[in-house]
Amino acid sequence: MQDQWINERLTSQISFLREVDKLKNVLRKTFIMDKSRLENTAEHSWHISLMAVVLQEHANDPSLNINQVIRMLLLHDLVEIDAGDTFAYDTEGYLDKEERENAAARRLFGLLPEDQRGEWMTLWREFEDGITYEAKYAAALDRLQPVIHNYYTGGVSWIKHGIVKSQVLKRLTPVQEVSETLWRFTLEIVQRSIDQGMLQDDPIAKEVN
Amino acid sequence: MQDQWINERLTSQISFLREVDKLKNVLRKTFIMDKSRLENTAEHSWHISLMAVVLQEHANDPSLNINQVIRMLLLHDLVEIDAGDTFAYDTEGYLDKEERENAAARRLFGLLPEDQRGEWMTLWREFEDGITYEAKYAAALDRLQPVIHNYYTGGVSWIKHGIVKSQVLKRLTPVQEVSETLWRFTLEIVQRSIDQGMLQDDPIAKEVN
Ligand SMILES: [Ca+2]
Repeated sequence: MQDQWINERLTSQISFLREVDKLKNVLRKTFIMDKSRLENTAEHSWHISLMAVVLQEHANDPSLNINQVIRMLLLHDLVEIDAGDTFAYDTEGYLDKEERENAAARRLFGLLPEDQRGEWMTLWREFEDGITYEAKYAAALDRLQPVIHNYYTGGVSWIKHGIVKSQVLKRLTPVQEVSETLWRFTLEIVQRSIDQGMLQDDPIAKEVN
Repeated sequence: MQDQWINERLTSQISFLREVDKLKNVLRKTFIMDKSRLENTAEHSWHISLMAVVLQEHANDPSLNINQVIRMLLLHDLVEIDAGDTFAYDTEGYLDKEERENAAARRLFGLLPEDQRGEWMTLWREFEDGITYEAKYAAALDRLQPVIHNYYTGGVSWIKHGIVKSQVLKRLTPVQEVSETLWRFTLEIVQRSIDQGMLQDDPIAKEVN
């Protein structure tokens, strides 16, 4: 049901805001810090938006437009409402990820008044394309956050899915591009995770020798 | 445990970001839209930040600094980690709310490096004081969102707690101050809630007659 309200634009906007509530039911593969349950994508979006502000000083480029970053992070995962959360290391799921997510973006942003629809679609595309510094910084945090969660929850998600070091580092490439400090931290936390048996080192070297 | 990392500021910041994860376990009195469970404060913070952007055009004053609003909304409820969610209509809980929340702010923001601590405390105080237009707009959304949720979930929280019209309207005063359109919508949704038996009309008039 799309309730009608006095103001037509507000009717569309409220219907969009009701629909996005479903993000609270999309579960990720990472646990919240106390390990009591999986994290959902709505609270994840909040957490990394806050993280973006707290860690802003570590961006290599001080002209980073943090407001643009926050906007992207608030909406970047909305498409998961239709397309679901594709696990970072699920290569099969990634095959049709783009198609599924484009359709989702059209449907969801399509609920908004036409001018807003375009704005939001553009912002989401900026994040997905990952070309601007803001999009890269946003992606860096989106990828760093689950690593921090995995480390502090004993690597439970890495162990369950048999993830190895090179997979994590490859996924974290955006961090290297945007921040020296955060990249050093990434290498440090990945190494500690290996040392503590939460993450497997790469098997390749051994096979070659 | 506060893990030490190469970068000292990052050590404090990561420890803050781990701590705020606890907001995901603070439950509110409102349900998510599908009524399957109560909403937690982390996902609520995400939802109203997004709402602030979507509804920005309805602010009476077009010079509204929406970026300041989003920052406030992202952090405004962090104090609930220590102080808990005080139900909007719990007059007793409100007696020591300020004291509890001040202590919580000192502890939580105290985890950050000193310069950031001050910034965040100032931002949180701005929201709490409710004097700037940005703080009022942020408060308006914070108060309007549960009304929308209550309406679309059959008024379950209002009915359970025996809430009446004047209580809701009093709490929504900030909406009237910041937006004509949103205030008209508020009156409309409150009236529909009464008509549909989700919210009680005020009994006072009947008692007086
Ligand atoms: Ca994400």
